[in-house]
Amino acid sequence: MTNCAICKDDLKPEEGQIIWRGDDCRVILVNDSDLPGFCRVVWNRHVSEMTDLTHGERDHLMALVFAVEEAIRHVMYPDKVNIAALGNMVPHIHWHVIPRYKDDAYFPGSAWSSRTQEPSKAALEGRRALAAKLPNAIRSAISQMH
Amino acid sequence: MTNCAICKDDLKPEEGQIIWRGDDCRVILVNDSDLPGFCRVVWNRHVSEMTDLTHGERDHLMALVFAVEEAIRHVMYPDKVNIAALGNMVPHIHWHVIPRYKDDAYFPGSAWSSRTQEPSKAALEGRRALAAKLPNAIRSAISQMH
Repeated sequence: MTNCAICKDDLKPEEGQIIWRGDDCRVILVNDSDLPGFCRVVWNRHVSEMTDLTHGERDHLMALVFAVEEAIRHVMYPDKVNIAALGNMVPHIHWHVIPRYKDDAYFPGSAWSSRTQEPSKAALEGRRALAAKLPNAIRSAISQMH
Repeated sequence: MTNCAICKDDLKPEEGQIIWRGDDCRVILVNDSDLPGFCRVVWNRHVSEMTDLTHGERDHLMALVFAVEEAIRHVMYPDKVNIAALGNMVPHIHWHVIPRYKDDAYFPGSAWSSRTQEPSKAALEGRRALAAKLPNAIRSAISQMH
């Protein structure tokens, strides 16, 4: 769709990086200063809702989402993982997969809620260092999907 | 887990109603005055993350989530459906499945974001009337799952 930001696929380097691309989906490591390791799994074709996909397509997309969750847990040791497909702003299917920590800026709210606290710089730096390992870990998790 | 609100399964009538119960999951129609039709799909056993489930269990749970989405779209004609598994407050797997409308109280933010507008009473009343049809529609969608 010509006016869809996700269809345009013109991710700016400051917004994040595409770390894996397949025929149907791509995985983005989002550059979020508050939430290191924030990933997005995007369905390449313009579709609004999960139930617009075939059953096989849904399974494939969710398997990717869970591969990303697995890599995030393995690399980043979050206290919780948040998974969400909202799309109110851009109705083109994309899943947010977000490592959450009890001391992060929004905990225990959602990543779209008001800030609750200021995380320590040391904690954020540590998580950014771990997030640098995510691209390889995610590619590896996807390559092992069955 | 004894201190887990979801394990206790003591949903108060004012909070919502269980509209379907299976061996592994249950579906709740949440009583949310701002967001009629808000549903939750809960994994009965205490598990924190989707990747703690087996692949078969994940598939089963997501098939239920998508059956609920399908029924919501069929009955309530939302502008968008939001799907999320957060669990920061209660780390026991539960999926929120939420019909969203451009004039609802939080649009285009998440259901956990700040209010953006006051929806008209007429619109809310209309959606509450539709939501009354959801329990049967969801049970029917689940019975047709394959």
